[in-house]
Amino acid sequence: MRDTPYKQLEARFNRVSLISQARGFLHWDQSTMMPPGGAESRAEQLAALQAVEHGILTDPRTADLIAEAREGKADLDPWQQANLEEMTRLWTHASALDEKLVTQLSRAASECEMVWRKARPAGDFPMVLPRLRRLLELIRQAAEATGEHLGLDPYDALLDAYEPGVRTAGIDAVFADLEAFLPGFLAQVMERQKTAPAVVRPEGTFPAETQRALGLKLMETVGFDFDHGRLDISLHPFCGGTPDDVRITTRYNEADFTSSLIGVLHETGHALYDRGLPKMWRGQPVGDARGMAVHESQSLLIEMQVCRSRAFLEFAAPLMREAFGASGPAWEADNLYRLYTWVEPGLIRVNADEVTYPAHVILRYRLEKQLIEGGMEVGDLPEAWNEGMKALLGTVPTTDAGGCLQDIHWYDGAWGYFPTYTLGAIMAAQFFDAAKQADAAIGPGIAKGDFAPLMAWLRQNVHGQGSRFPSGDLLVQATGRPLDAEVFKAHLSRRYLEGE
Amino acid sequence: MRDTPYKQLEARFNRVSLISQARGFLHWDQSTMMPPGGAESRAEQLAALQAVEHGILTDPRTADLIAEAREGKADLDPWQQANLEEMTRLWTHASALDEKLVTQLSRAASECEMVWRKARPAGDFPMVLPRLRRLLELIRQAAEATGEHLGLDPYDALLDAYEPGVRTAGIDAVFADLEAFLPGFLAQVMERQKTAPAVVRPEGTFPAETQRALGLKLMETVGFDFDHGRLDISLHPFCGGTPDDVRITTRYNEADFTSSLIGVLHETGHALYDRGLPKMWRGQPVGDARGMAVHESQSLLIEMQVCRSRAFLEFAAPLMREAFGASGPAWEADNLYRLYTWVEPGLIRVNADEVTYPAHVILRYRLEKQLIEGGMEVGDLPEAWNEGMKALLGTVPTTDAGGCLQDIHWYDGAWGYFPTYTLGAIMAAQFFDAAKQADAAIGPGIAKGDFAPLMAWLRQNVHGQGSRFPSGDLLVQATGRPLDAEVFKAHLSRRYLEGE
Repeated sequence: MRDTPYKQLEARFNRVSLISQARGFLHWDQSTMMPPGGAESRAEQLAALQAVEHGILTDPRTADLIAEAREGKADLDPWQQANLEEMTRLWTHASALDEKLVTQLSRAASECEMVWRKARPAGDFPMVLPRLRRLLELIRQAAEATGEHLGLDPYDALLDAYEPGVRTAGIDAVFADLEAFLPGFLAQVMERQKTAPAVVRPEGTFPAETQRALGLKLMETVGFDFDHGRLDISLHPFCGGTPDDVRITTRYNEADFTSSLIGVLHETGHALYDRGLPKMWRGQPVGDARGMAVHESQSLLIEMQVCRSRAFLEFAAPLMREAFGASGPAWEADNLYRLYTWVEPGLIRVNADEVTYPAHVILRYRLEKQLIEGGMEVGDLPEAWNEGMKALLGTVPTTDAGGCLQDIHWYDGAWGYFPTYTLGAIMAAQFFDAAKQADAAIGPGIAKGDFAPLMAWLRQNVHGQGSRFPSGDLLVQATGRPLDAEVFKAHLSRRYLEGE
Repeated sequence: MRDTPYKQLEARFNRVSLISQARGFLHWDQSTMMPPGGAESRAEQLAALQAVEHGILTDPRTADLIAEAREGKADLDPWQQANLEEMTRLWTHASALDEKLVTQLSRAASECEMVWRKARPAGDFPMVLPRLRRLLELIRQAAEATGEHLGLDPYDALLDAYEPGVRTAGIDAVFADLEAFLPGFLAQVMERQKTAPAVVRPEGTFPAETQRALGLKLMETVGFDFDHGRLDISLHPFCGGTPDDVRITTRYNEADFTSSLIGVLHETGHALYDRGLPKMWRGQPVGDARGMAVHESQSLLIEMQVCRSRAFLEFAAPLMREAFGASGPAWEADNLYRLYTWVEPGLIRVNADEVTYPAHVILRYRLEKQLIEGGMEVGDLPEAWNEGMKALLGTVPTTDAGGCLQDIHWYDGAWGYFPTYTLGAIMAAQFFDAAKQADAAIGPGIAKGDFAPLMAWLRQNVHGQGSRFPSGDLLVQATGRPLDAEVFKAHLSRRYLEGE
């Protein structure tokens, strides 16, 4: 007997998933292992795999099967129905773009990124402007085409690719809330910091091997499964691989161990999400991570909510002292806590603290929305950037290297991605708050390095849900409330005004 | 204007090549980096990529394009004509097998190999026999189907997949020649060894890091390009990757550096071949390595012909002493030369010396030919093995672990592969002899660690020819004579009877 249309779709999407997994490992290899001379052929291998995936998704037979399967949707169980919804969504996104535009976009992004790599250190925005203009033109074409297919405005169509279901209207509301709250709050925090004891930086040489050993130990504490994952080195830290083989990276600065260590814990949060995705649905769209905002919520939950907390640092401080054979005021838990929660407005997003980070995201969100909607010319970006920085954080970069050239996203084609950072931070606060309310053992567990209660809650309420629900529904089911900034603001107040 | 059928085939085969390259890196990763828990999903990723390749090759449009392109063959240049021949060959091999048989074979091979991994250490042939019987049955089906398509006997069809154009008739002739020569020769060598000074093994602890540093140094000396390659660790050494990113592996025994070091040089020979393949024809069948016999000729040329020679060891001995901070009789070039050319009949192929190695291959060749042709039942393999060993080398294993279970090949489906080892050894002698005759600077160059003259000859006469000619023609063009054992025998005589 012939498989049902739904079963045939499962086979097709499983193949797409497996090829995409292969692509994931080639990306990981490119960032961690590949010798420089492999770059050109690697780009071709990746493009070929992507073309095969696009070919399966846009094959006319896939469209037929989706139509047929949707007619029989009532016969499917709830997970299958959700899977069919995700298949439909992926198919809609893929079929909105013809192969020519996909290829042009991929090439324009590679070319723009290559020029950006030189323009950034030189602070030379005009150098990259022609490439960026061309790339943006193609991104706008793609956003319009996708928007038409989905019945969305172009910018919402871009957002939907990173975090399905998230729309400008929802973002505007929470960002307005944050923008009203943060300036006054920041002033209070800065005032309070003036009277606090000075932060003492641990000094010394911290060998990469020792940093690595400590990182591995804390990864294990949090719950990383080394039978199904690795820790390696790359220039830009990331989490890659697949749920059964999750690979995170870091880089070591031998003069300062603190940034690598917290980065490793951040990536561990991403890794635990991937590892906890529903095993029954491996290789199917409904078994994938929900989106980039939920993904970031899991890394920030581990990094910001848990590992920068006083309770965790009291547990971790002796391990740090032991690892480096160090002692003294810099190594006391209270000092490490103040170091890891120090607030200071700056120019660079990736160095920003938890309090000022949203301002960096809000700036990028507004600018990219205007550029996509056509309300601004891309040549005016540096000026608009600097004005925005002045208004939001009261500081202006001296060159574009510290301004609109600092992040790779726009230059390699990731438009509509930035909001997921702050949405993730807000969700992280909501998830962690709900988890602690649901299980009183979570807080005391963390204080003694026992993450099992927290993981049990996350597995059940977030990781194990895969893509079964849109992130808005996932959040309501797990926490009892929709996305809003209240819990995040309360967390900031407790940590930065009360020192909790 | 539409591309010609030939140009359309180039696009198709380029995609097949890129997907196959991706598969190559996933194999490399599996052996070097992958955590154990990634194995299951990795097998699925590899199978999906292989299915995509098979799908492109067996697509009816590919058959049409090949027919059309062959009609216009006269308009193609010689490289394109050779490329079209290779495309036809790959298509013929692929289309001989239906997808069901390909899948059954792949699964049967994985299952048999898994059982073999337990059966081998236990010396328990009956444990793996049912799986091996099933696998052999499928291999015979595939061999017959391919043979019909190619107009070949089943065993020749298997050979053709590993070294196109090589046939049983040719192998029988050279193997008969060797079998007549070797027993008497071996007796002479053993007699001569009795009166030679005893070999002194370098003793000590040789840290893996130091072994690695020395390996890298000698790789560089021979000509390995680290912008386009890496050296890593794996249980079974191999050479993988692609011409622009060649990756070799080794494993370190801290009690004995000599085996890893010569293994690294062997794999470097493979790597130089891959790296030297014609750049103009990357991603096309004619740009691929010719076959496994030619590949082995390049590794054995570097390992056996060059690096185990007295001239090279005189160059390398001071580097070894310096690397390990060692001195004394064991570290003299003459002793190292005798160590690296010591002859001793044994049970295990991979430990065999250059003189007894062909006997191991001849045994396997005869047995697998009988099994494929149906002249022997697979259950009789252990007995036939032991009889063959007694006749060929005068030694019999006490358990099958040191007998018919020792090699992975049959148990993971590589039937028809074994002859390429000895064909490679013979070709290596012929190529090296011709190279030295063509350029008098090659010998003196090696003696002072200058491999440029040898590489220049190999690049032009072997590496850079890709798959343009069948290996028989390649050999004649490069050396002026067809495959025969004369040059190999002369090399053995000079080295093992005259100590050259």
